[in-house]
Amino acid sequence: MKNIEHIGIAVRDLESSVELFSKLLNIPPYKSEKVESEGVETTFFKTGETKVELLSATNEDSPIAKFLEKKGEGIHHIAFEVADLDAEIKRLEKEGFKLINQASKDGADNKKIAFLHPKSTNGVLIEICQEKEK
Amino acid sequence: MKNIEHIGIAVRDLESSVELFSKLLNIPPYKSEKVESEGVETTFFKTGETKVELLSATNEDSPIAKFLEKKGEGIHHIAFEVADLDAEIKRLEKEGFKLINQASKDGADNKKIAFLHPKSTNGVLIEICQEKEK
Repeated sequence: MKNIEHIGIAVRDLESSVELFSKLLNIPPYKSEKVESEGVETTFFKTGETKVELLSATNEDSPIAKFLEKKGEGIHHIAFEVADLDAEIKRLEKEGFKLINQASKDGADNKKIAFLHPKSTNGVLIEICQEKEK
Repeated sequence: MKNIEHIGIAVRDLESSVELFSKLLNIPPYKSEKVESEGVETTFFKTGETKVELLSATNEDSPIAKFLEKKGEGIHHIAFEVADLDAEIKRLEKEGFKLINQASKDGADNKKIAFLHPKSTNGVLIEICQEKEK
């Protein structure tokens, strides 16, 4: 794992939360993006090398809608950047971690991603990601 | 806010979680520390410029003990590094954010710290911190 690429925060209303985090961080967001396959709409802020990603649901079957219903607003996941996602998935499985998706899939911000199951990581949902070649 | 200084994760058993995160991050921790005034014992990992801080309770009145009882293990807070903590506290209060402590206090890892109330920040407990002069 190279560094924390971003922290994902689940919010109910993206527009008002973007305003709130702009004031909090004292910077404007740099990007917004919909990932229809994941049912999320996201806005990113850059704070040093780690981004803050606000996540809202685009439909009621979205993992974010389910998270908000169960736990309310708050930190949804931490994403670590890795040099080789497929190799890291294999290493983690060998170490006994459970992955939610064994094969990498497309995420926001031009990334290949995979998620570890929070049951194997002290309740923390962890994403590992690798920048896709453009 | 300059960057995300660390992410705090509340765990029940520090020893087994340190072992787990050493495997997950594929690095050993670089420091352990007790902050008696806060009722916490911590271990730090360095991942790029952002640290991962595992937090366990040293007594049942500890904020970490209360968090674990209420929410279970998981991400407890995000800490942003600032250049001037007192000025940042004033700026955030002026913007309408609620602070848990208006005056800065001593935290782990040679820092002055303050916490914002999660009710004013989409359910996320946010710490702001500044390195103390040695």
